[in-house]
Amino acid sequence: MGSYLENQTQLLSSAGTTPPVDSRQRAKQFMLNLQDEICTALEKLDGEARFREDHWQRTEGGEGRTRVIRDGRVFEQGGVNFSEVWGDSLPPSIVAQRPEALGHEFFVTGTSMVLHPRNPYVPTVHLNYRYFEAGPIWWFGGGADLTPYYPFVEDAIHFHSLLKRACDTSHPEYYPTFKHWCDEYFYLRHRQEQRGIGGIFFDYQDASGKLYVGSQPDSQAAMYSQQVGTVSRNWEDIFAFVQSCGHAFLPAYLPIAERRQGIEYGERQRQFQLYRRGRYVEFNLVYDRGTVFGLQTNGRAESILMSLPPLTRWEYCYEPEPGSPEAQLTEFFLQPQDWANMCLEQK
Amino acid sequence: MGSYLENQTQLLSSAGTTPPVDSRQRAKQFMLNLQDEICTALEKLDGEARFREDHWQRTEGGEGRTRVIRDGRVFEQGGVNFSEVWGDSLPPSIVAQRPEALGHEFFVTGTSMVLHPRNPYVPTVHLNYRYFEAGPIWWFGGGADLTPYYPFVEDAIHFHSLLKRACDTSHPEYYPTFKHWCDEYFYLRHRQEQRGIGGIFFDYQDASGKLYVGSQPDSQAAMYSQQVGTVSRNWEDIFAFVQSCGHAFLPAYLPIAERRQGIEYGERQRQFQLYRRGRYVEFNLVYDRGTVFGLQTNGRAESILMSLPPLTRWEYCYEPEPGSPEAQLTEFFLQPQDWANMCLEQK
Repeated sequence: MGSYLENQTQLLSSAGTTPPVDSRQRAKQFMLNLQDEICTALEKLDGEARFREDHWQRTEGGEGRTRVIRDGRVFEQGGVNFSEVWGDSLPPSIVAQRPEALGHEFFVTGTSMVLHPRNPYVPTVHLNYRYFEAGPIWWFGGGADLTPYYPFVEDAIHFHSLLKRACDTSHPEYYPTFKHWCDEYFYLRHRQEQRGIGGIFFDYQDASGKLYVGSQPDSQAAMYSQQVGTVSRNWEDIFAFVQSCGHAFLPAYLPIAERRQGIEYGERQRQFQLYRRGRYVEFNLVYDRGTVFGLQTNGRAESILMSLPPLTRWEYCYEPEPGSPEAQLTEFFLQPQDWANMCLEQK
Repeated sequence: MGSYLENQTQLLSSAGTTPPVDSRQRAKQFMLNLQDEICTALEKLDGEARFREDHWQRTEGGEGRTRVIRDGRVFEQGGVNFSEVWGDSLPPSIVAQRPEALGHEFFVTGTSMVLHPRNPYVPTVHLNYRYFEAGPIWWFGGGADLTPYYPFVEDAIHFHSLLKRACDTSHPEYYPTFKHWCDEYFYLRHRQEQRGIGGIFFDYQDASGKLYVGSQPDSQAAMYSQQVGTVSRNWEDIFAFVQSCGHAFLPAYLPIAERRQGIEYGERQRQFQLYRRGRYVEFNLVYDRGTVFGLQTNGRAESILMSLPPLTRWEYCYEPEPGSPEAQLTEFFLQPQDWANMCLEQK
C-alpha cells in the first residue's frame, strides 16, 4: 500500500499517460466494427456488387481482413481494410518522429478505406484510423477526406460540417487544427496542388496534452512541428474522439454519393476523372504515410495498393479550358476553403 | 616550367581525375545530339505522330527541352527529355552517396526517355544518360532497359547483345557488372518482382578506378556498395563508354519495335498491358532515382512525370492463368537471365 500521494500519482498516471490494460483489444474491436459498419452501408448503397473478403497473415506478426468491392453500380473499385500488425521495431520514418519508440516492440491496428466511384460526379473518398503502441508510448492517428472531380459547394460544406460536429463534441480546437493539418498533408508539392477538398487529418495524438499543426509533409519523414495549444486529455478522451470521427463517416459521405450517383455524364467527364485519378496515384505512391509505412514494414502489397484506382491516365501538359468546370476544380475547390463555416447563400 | 615529374603528375591528374575544361559543354552536346538522333528515328518508325517540343527554364538555374509524342501509330505516348540543371547544392539523397559534393554547387546534364507503345507485343523501353559535376567530383550515370508485356526470347537476346557489344568496346567487366546492377535497380521490392527484362544500369562512374555492383536500392537513399574490381580509366574513357551505350540504343530497340508492331492483339492483351503498366508507375514513383531527384530539386513535374503511361489500371489480386503467356512473363522473363549469352537454339 503506497501513500496517498503515491496513489494519486498512480491514478493520474493511469488516467493520463498510460493506456488501459485492454487498450489493444478495445482499439482493435473498434477498427473491426468500423469496417463492418462501413461495408454494410456501402453494399446497401451500391445495390449490386458485394465485398470480397481476404484474410491474410503477416509472417513477422499480425493479420488482417481486406475487403474489396469491384464493378459495382456505384463503386468501380474500392477497398476497406482492417489490419493488426506487430513487430520488433517501427520503421525509421516513424522512430524519427517518436524516438521514445526506439528499441521497443510495436503494435498497430487500423482501418483504412478508399472508394473510387464510377460516376465522375461522385467523389473519391478516403478514411483511415489507426492506433499505435510502442514501449512506453501510444498514439492515435487518422482522418477522412474527399477528392471530387466535379464538386458541389453544398457537398463540401456537408462533408466538412459533419466532421466538424464529430470533432466539436471532443474539443473546439480539434476541427480547425485537424482540418488545417489535412490541407497540409494532402498536398502534392510537385504539382503545387491539393489532392482534394480535404477533411480532417491527425497523427501522434497522445496524452502529452500538446496539440500540433502539421507542417509540410515530405516523403522522407513525415514531420509536424508547430504547437498550437495544450489540451488536457487521456487515453479514453482520445479514443472517444476517434470513435466519434469514425462514426461520422457514413452520414458525411453517403448523402453525397446518393444524390450524385445518377447524374448523367459523357466521355469528357470520364476522361477528366481518369486524368485526375492520376493525381491520386501520385500522392499515394510519393507522399502517403500509410503507403510508405506499409511498404517499409513488408506489408501485404495487394492490401496497401488497393487504394489505387481501377483505371487512370496521364496526359502531358493537360490544361483545362478557362472557365470550364474542370478549371473550376483546381482554381476554386482545390484551394483550401473554410467549408464548415461557409454560408451556402454566399455562393 | 615545372620539372619532368611535376609535368607528368599534372598530366596524370588532368587525364585522370580532372575533367577537361570543356567537359560540361561536351557532355551537354552529346545529350542534345542523342535526343535529336533518337527523336528523328522514332518519328520515322512511327510514320504518323510527331514530337511536340517544349523549352523550359528552371528558376533556380537550368533549362531543358521536353519532347513528347502522342497518339501515334506505334507510340501511344512517349517522351524524350533533355535537361541541364545547376544549383547551390545537390539534394540530400545524392550527397549521402557523394559526401565530397557537400557545400559545392552542382551541374547536371542528361537525356532521358520512356516510350509506351500501343501494341502490347512491343515493349516499353527506357533510356537515361546523365553527367554530374559538383565541386571536386564528377560522374556519369545511366543505362537502358526493356519492359515487355508479351516478350520474345530473341528480342531479349538481341537487346542485351547490343548493349553488351557497346560495353565490351570499353571494358569486358562493364556489361556483366552493369547488367547485374540493372537487375538489382529495376526491382519492385514490395512486389518481389523485376520491372522488366533489364539491360544495363550504372551510376557514380568516375576515375576512381573502382567498379561497383549496386546493392538493393531503396526510396530513401540509393545505395551501392559491393566493389568488384578496379579499372584504370579517365574522363575521356568513361565519356566514350557512355557515348557508345547511347548510340547502341536505336539498333537495340528499333528492330524489336519494327517486327512486333504489326502483331494482332485483342482485349485480353490490351487489358494485361494496362495492368502491367501499373507496375511501371509503382516503380517510377516509389523507387526511381531520377524521379525522386527531379521532384526533390523542384524540377518540372510535367517533364519528370512524362515517363508515366497514358492509360493504366490496377486490379486487386490479379493472378494470371497458369501456363498462359501472362504467367510466363513473370515466371520466366522477369527472372534475371543471362540473355546476352543465351543460345537461341536452347529455347
